[in-house]
This record gives sequence, structure tokens and C-alpha cells, in this order.
Amino acid sequence: MINYKDLDLTDNYAVLKAKKPFDIKTCLNADRIRKSNIREAGSMSYNYAAMPVDEDIIDTLQALADEQQLIEKYKALLSGERMNTGEDRLVLHQLTRGRAIDGLKVMADGVEKGDFYNQELEKIRVFSEKVRSGEIKGSTGKEIKTVIQIGIGGSDLGPRALCYALNLIGPQDGCTKKLEARFISNVDPDDACAVVSGLDLESTLFILVSKSGTTQETLANRDLVFKVMRDSGVQGLVPEKHVVAVTSNTSPLANNPDILAVFFMDDYIGGRYSATSPVGGVILSLTYGFDVFKAILDGAHAEDVCALESDIRKNGTLMDAMIGIYLRNALGYPYTAVLPYSQSLHRMPAHFQQLDMESNGKHVNRFGKVVNYQTGPVIFGEPGTNGQHSFYQLLHQGTDIVPMQFIGFRNAQGELDNMNGGSTSQTKLKANLVAQIVAFACGRDNAENPNKSFEGSRPSSLLCADRLDPFTLGAILAHFENKVMFQGFVWNINSFDQEGVQLGKILAKKVLAGCEGDENLEAYAEIMGI
Amino acid sequence: MINYKDLDLTDNYAVLKAKKPFDIKTCLNADRIRKSNIREAGSMSYNYAAMPVDEDIIDTLQALADEQQLIEKYKALLSGERMNTGEDRLVLHQLTRGRAIDGLKVMADGVEKGDFYNQELEKIRVFSEKVRSGEIKGSTGKEIKTVIQIGIGGSDLGPRALCYALNLIGPQDGCTKKLEARFISNVDPDDACAVVSGLDLESTLFILVSKSGTTQETLANRDLVFKVMRDSGVQGLVPEKHVVAVTSNTSPLANNPDILAVFFMDDYIGGRYSATSPVGGVILSLTYGFDVFKAILDGAHAEDVCALESDIRKNGTLMDAMIGIYLRNALGYPYTAVLPYSQSLHRMPAHFQQLDMESNGKHVNRFGKVVNYQTGPVIFGEPGTNGQHSFYQLLHQGTDIVPMQFIGFRNAQGELDNMNGGSTSQTKLKANLVAQIVAFACGRDNAENPNKSFEGSRPSSLLCADRLDPFTLGAILAHFENKVMFQGFVWNINSFDQEGVQLGKILAKKVLAGCEGDENLEAYAEIMGI
Repeated sequence: MINYKDLDLTDNYAVLKAKKPFDIKTCLNADRIRKSNIREAGSMSYNYAAMPVDEDIIDTLQALADEQQLIEKYKALLSGERMNTGEDRLVLHQLTRGRAIDGLKVMADGVEKGDFYNQELEKIRVFSEKVRSGEIKGSTGKEIKTVIQIGIGGSDLGPRALCYALNLIGPQDGCTKKLEARFISNVDPDDACAVVSGLDLESTLFILVSKSGTTQETLANRDLVFKVMRDSGVQGLVPEKHVVAVTSNTSPLANNPDILAVFFMDDYIGGRYSATSPVGGVILSLTYGFDVFKAILDGAHAEDVCALESDIRKNGTLMDAMIGIYLRNALGYPYTAVLPYSQSLHRMPAHFQQLDMESNGKHVNRFGKVVNYQTGPVIFGEPGTNGQHSFYQLLHQGTDIVPMQFIGFRNAQGELDNMNGGSTSQTKLKANLVAQIVAFACGRDNAENPNKSFEGSRPSSLLCADRLDPFTLGAILAHFENKVMFQGFVWNINSFDQEGVQLGKILAKKVLAGCEGDENLEAYAEIMGI
Repeated sequence: MINYKDLDLTDNYAVLKAKKPFDIKTCLNADRIRKSNIREAGSMSYNYAAMPVDEDIIDTLQALADEQQLIEKYKALLSGERMNTGEDRLVLHQLTRGRAIDGLKVMADGVEKGDFYNQELEKIRVFSEKVRSGEIKGSTGKEIKTVIQIGIGGSDLGPRALCYALNLIGPQDGCTKKLEARFISNVDPDDACAVVSGLDLESTLFILVSKSGTTQETLANRDLVFKVMRDSGVQGLVPEKHVVAVTSNTSPLANNPDILAVFFMDDYIGGRYSATSPVGGVILSLTYGFDVFKAILDGAHAEDVCALESDIRKNGTLMDAMIGIYLRNALGYPYTAVLPYSQSLHRMPAHFQQLDMESNGKHVNRFGKVVNYQTGPVIFGEPGTNGQHSFYQLLHQGTDIVPMQFIGFRNAQGELDNMNGGSTSQTKLKANLVAQIVAFACGRDNAENPNKSFEGSRPSSLLCADRLDPFTLGAILAHFENKVMFQGFVWNINSFDQEGVQLGKILAKKVLAGCEGDENLEAYAEIMGI
């Protein structure tokens, strides 16, 4: 029997809040570092040695996770419970990984949803192979070389971050050919202008992505690129023949027989959780090949399975989520920095920022009642070592403590490297990562010159793996998706709707309709020259 | 006579902390919006109507600014005072704009520094014109088409953000030809690998940027691209003939007669303040032409002049800075979101993140004494409308308030736009911006369904201008540089050093030397496979 209660009504909340943080500054040691390591999917592991939790706090986190029935709720979600209470919907993104956990069947809308998603997956395989082999060509007979996704929010950030992340993979990863992937998201016409400028439209395929088929930005950008194609003067260029759509089967985009193909998602896949659905699948399969996308799905699925473990000491995602609760609700930290030591992951923090802040930036519980505690933190980040020469100054010596989540790999993704001063670039990258964790945790006192003094006690965790290959990328993605889900369960909120985006949409329409007498809108519209 | 005192020792600190915030939710109106607008350089203005300050609070902010002698300190900095106390250095980035304020002369190291910077500027003009005209060619006789900056931190973020920001300018902006600009920053070998892959090395020019000439990442990347050039097998390709350096005249990079050219900066230009020095000037002049860079300098200079005004109601930068103090030290907000409604500014938040967090993320005052109040906040941001479909959920409905700084333009930068549903994309962009400001400030109650309720009272400001041209870009850059400087004066900290980056560097060297018996480093190095 599953119970839903607010965090402040649990037995363990007050217990947790009273726990004094473990002193990482003086008590971090090699034994702790080696022992505080949890294996996850593939070669991935989560290390929490530099987090301010001791065995006693971990016991309380386990008790709280049990009391809030995190694993039971995860299983309920997997089996088709309507976990998206605000919109009264199922939550099925884990079912888009190409296989169901434990072969679970989920019926909805008169179909088995696993079968439904797998059918779309097969459509993606067939279509992407035809485009990549040159069987499907542009309307003037040219092979497709560039794929442009037009979408915003979840239809952009996740797919884009994953596409960029695999930039340097090669035959060892099942990728023997690459098409160029680009993205148009912003309603700002300068976005589309920059992306299509100098482009060979005849060898370009556009992917329109909008679940509802009504997203203002996406439709405006579709019309804008159609106009560019029509104005190009190229004989025989038919815009519709350069377009596929990813949408729900009830959307206006679903019914255009003129376009090349339509791939379906549904209301049970939130935008920010849709990277493993056709929203990410079409562009990833076109760009790198279907096998690469399949490997991402395999990694995500393997990680979903790891997340079923109820022992917090054997479940890295659960540990990560629960430590986050301790940091947020007991220690009061309002933010977390996500710091990948991999240039290929340079847009992953932006995706995790959406994933986390849009899911858990909520002030009401899953029943719509205002909660009495803090929920999701602000998420930000940039790749290391870049950040070390930028905002790390504040992380080391600022007046506030910012918890950090490091991500690192033992090997580079590409094949280029070089020795310089006795070490390779990849080794330097890793040495910096290791150095930062210890510097943040242990600090260094300098009584003579406080300006050179590092207080330490800056908590961080480390998610690491052998190499950023497609499987590992999928596992990292699922780790963060499931972390956010677990934290939502602890806070008793609905991590799957986003009512907070609505008011802005309503008011923007009002401005476009002449402000309808709203004097504030009028005054700002005047300033902006509308 | 200038006095330096900690914020908590000022008369106005307690006064300010006691002030009840102005209620923007119920008191925002058209009159306030029109009146709370301060003209800055060119067409730019700063609007603070949706900030929780009334005339009484502004009076206190003025009194505090006067008490902390912000304008006097700015003038002292301009006239060569050693404001970088930690490193005992002058702070002269405003002098790199191509002209001195009020013709001020600053002597240091036996030269007049304005003349020194202007000489380098003239060198940039001559060199960039020769490269762009084809007079200077690559070592195999090909014209230079691609320029790659190798630098990290301040040698990367600012120049990169500015380069990207001007992507769509054209002849109306004095730009008749564009070279392609790219950037290598991260020591991760995958960064260089991705940038140089598929590149025509014969028509590429590299700019090495490191003030000290010893930056680990930059030297590793230099060697890495040299190796690629040597391994390319191209007859007659001489790597050194494809390289210029930007460095100080005492650095190891300054003394290589084999390379094409060297441009000098000095110790009085902090990395994060160096975008208008040769650090940004060489790549911007090569990419867009010297006249474009000169227009950026003109905009920055005009804004520097605006910032001299002592009346807070006539000085947008001062108002912005002081409202930030109220938000941080009276209301306790630990972060600020920077939200440009312009896709071309997509990397500007990353630059401002460094600028602000590295400058003011300090725990000691300018004399090295620990301070008793909060200093610089966490800065993050992404372009709108993208963010609206991402993290804005938390900004609207999260449990914490995040102050916001909007940036917008009346006209698009590029020439592409389209009508869709009765409005252009640019108008939609602006309508969204206007809508968000009002939605955040005023909210919307929904007693029946708190999940659809927006609490409002989310403060924001708006920096806006006619169009993102080079002059305006320079003005925006200087606005934020000067804002950070003013806030540093209020907090009595040194915004111009960065001791917080040192410990990580020391420990990274230790790891590369085998950890020297540090068991924590050893254990993490083991996990990372070092």
C-alpha cells in the first residue's frame, strides 16, 4: 500500500534535520574514498566520499527513503500508475528505452504502451537507415547531409546535449558515418537565421518536434525555414519533402500527408524526459546511426534497473538523490553545480538544469497543497577545466557553500592526445578533477594571509566511467532522470507537470493581441517598441 | 580622501537591512514603469520598475553608495590607484577602450599606459587588415579563413561571447567580410580534437592567449595543435607561421621570433576584464574587421563615462549594482539569473558568470580580513525564450525567489524574419519578454488550484536597446564590468584578484607528480585511473 505524505509529516524529517554534518575537511581519507563508491550501469560508479554524510546520516536517509516508499513509488510508476497527478497522466519515459523492466506490460489508450514505443523505434530504424544510405533523398535528388531539429525546451535541450556529447565517437562505438546535426529553438529570428545561413537546403532535413503540435516557437520557426526554402529559387525544392515531425497522434502536426514521415510520442512522456523517445531518437539515429541510439537506450535501461535496488548503499542514484535532500533540507543549500570534466558534455548541464528545475521547482505537493519546505534547487554548471578559470573562485572562497556534482571519464572520447611536460592532456584533465575534489573538501588554512586561505568543507560527489560512449551517455542521462524522480517522491511533489510555464504564455498572447488594457504590459511593450 | 570600510561598519547598512521591500506585486503600474528608466550609452536603458525598491530605499542606496564613495573609488581606479590590493596592481581595463576618460594619463612601468594600449591597438589594426586583405598568408601561401583562439577563462569566455554575439552583423555595422572564429579552451583533448577535425590547417591562424605565458591548458593545447600540423604531412606547413600570441611582455610566449606576431597586455588587465584588450581585440578584428572592434570599444567607453554619474537615479549601472546589494544583503537572495532575449548572446551569461563570481566570490576584504556579510551571488542564465521552456518553472513556482536580469532588443540583429499568425518572430520574442517581467512581478492567484497559482513578487530588471550592434555590445559588456566593480567597492573587497584558483593548481601538479604521499589524492587518482 503506497502512502503519499509531505516531507515535514514524515518521522525521519526532524531526525535528519538534527543531524550534524560529517566533517569532510578533517575526516576524508583513502579508506573512506575507496568504500564510498557504488557501482552503477556498465563501468559507471557514484562516489560520495566528499559528501558530509556518515553512516548514521546514511541510515536516516535510508529510513526516510523507505518511509517515503521511493522504490515502491518507482515501481508503481513503471507499472502505469498515474503519477503525473496534475495532468492525471501516466509517466512512461523509462518504457521508451526499447524494453520494459521485468517485461512489465502497461495498457493505456487501448494499446500496450511498450509495444507502441517499440513500433516507433522500429520506424526510426527503418527511416534513418533509408536516409543514411541515400535511399531517401531531398526533393531535388540530393543526399541528406544535414539534419536540423526545430523544437524548444525538452524538444531541444536533451537531444542537443546528447548529440553534442557524441561528437567524437567512431567505429568502435558502432558509428561509421556522421550526418551534421543542428538545432533551432529560440523564437528569436536570429537563431534560425544563423543556423540556415550558408546551408545547402537541398541536402537538409528538418525535424519538427512538438508534442502538442502548437508550440509557438516551433511553428514560427517552421514557417520561417519554409519561407527561406521557398525564397531560395531552387527549382524543384519542395519544403514538405524535407520535413519529418515528432508529435502526439492527436496533434495538428500529425495530419500532414505531404511531409516525409511522422513519429509519435504521447502525453506520458514529459518533454524533459523525452530524450530516449523519438524526440531524441530521430535526430540521434539520423546523425550517428540507429545502433548508436540503441546503445544509449541500453545504457539508460541498465541504469533504470540499477535504480530499483532498495539498499541505498547499493543504489548510486538513490544515494545521490537522498544526499541531495540532506543538502537541501537539512543544510539549506539552495543550489547545486553540475561539473562535467568532458568538453563533449558541454551542454549537459543545461539539460540537467531543465530536467531538475522544471521537474522539482514546485511549491505545491502532488495533491495541489502548498508545501512547508524547500523543493528543487537551482542547477547550473560548465565543463571543467574551463570552470576552474571562471566561477570556481566563488566555489572555493565565496561566502556561501555550493554543493557540486563532478562527472569524469578515465579515457578521452576522441583519438587525439599528446604528451606535454610528462603527461597527456587527458591525464592533466583527470588530475585537475581529482585535485578539485580534494581542494574543495579539505581546503588549506593560511593564518598569515586569509586571502590565500581555503576553508574547505565544500561537498562534492563524483560520477565516473571508463569513457563517454553511447551506453555510458544513456546511463548518465537515466541517473539524473531517476535522481530527480526520487527527490520528487521525497518532497511529495509532482515532478512531471509544468504549470509554471502557463502564465507567461497567456500574457505573451495578450501582448500580441494589443495588451487588452493591461497597463503594465502596455508600458513595457512601449519600452520594447512593440 | 578615500576611506575603505567593511559594509557592516557603514552607517547605512543597518538602515538598508531594515527596509521593507517595495511591493511590486500590487504596486507595479504604468507610471512607475515609465519613470523607472535610466538612459545609458547609445540607445541603451536600464529599467528597474519590477525591482522591490521604492524612493525611500533608493535614497538609502544613494546614501550607501556615497558613504562607500563608489564614484570616487571608480575615479581613483581610473587615475591609476593600486586597486588590486591582493596583487598590488593597478586596474586599467577601462583604459583599453582606445581613449582615456577625461584624457587622464596613467604612468606605470615607465610608460603612459593609455599610449601603451593604443600602440597595441594600432598593431592589431595593421595586422588584422593585412590578414583580412590576404597580404599575410599561411605558410603554404593560402589565405587565412579560420582564426582559432587558444585560451581559457578570461582568455576564452569574454572573447568567445563577443564573437558569437556578432554572428549576424553586416555592412550596416561596418562588417563587409567575416572570417570564421573558433575557440579551444579545455585541457580535455576532445576539445581541440573537435575543433581542428576536418579543418584546412593551411588557411588557419591560431591565437595563443595567456598573460603569464604559462597556463597549463593553453600550452598543452598549443602543443596538441602543433602536433596535428606536423602530423598532417602537408608540405611546407610551418606551425609557427600560423601562430600569434597575446601575452605580457615578460612572459615566455613573448620571446619567440619564429611566430607571426605578438600583442601585449599587462598585469593591470585581469583576464575576466580583458575582452577589450588584445585578448578580445585580435580575434574580433580578424573575424569582423578592426572597425567593428573599434565600435565595441566606443560603446564600452561611452558606458564607462555614464558610470561616472554620482546620482543613482541617472546612473543605470550604479542603480543596478546597488539594487543588487539590497537583494543580496537585505533580502538574502543568493543568486541572480541573467536572461538575454537574443540568441546571439547565448554565451554572454557564461562570461558574466565568470566576471561576477570570480570578481566578487570573496570571503576577505581588500586588506585580507574575513568579512561578516555575504558577497557575490551565484550567476547563471540561458537565452529566452529557451529558458521559458526549461528552468523558468522554478523561477515562477519554486519555493525560493531568484532575482532576474533581462536583456532585450527592439530589433533583430539579422535580416531574416517572418509573419506567422499576425506577428513577426521578433515581435513574439519581445512579447514574451514583456510578458515574463509582468508575470514574475504580479503573479496570478488561483485559490481553487494552487498548482496554477503564481505568487508573483519575483523581482527583475530590464536592460534594453535598439539592436545588438557592436557599439551596444560594448556598452552591455561595460555595464556588467562596472556593476561588478561598484558592488566590490560596497563590499570592500578586491574584485581584481583570484587567489581561489591557486589551491586546485597546486594539487593538480601534485597529482601529476604522483600525489607525493597525499592519500586522498591517491585514492581519487586510483578511481580515475591515473
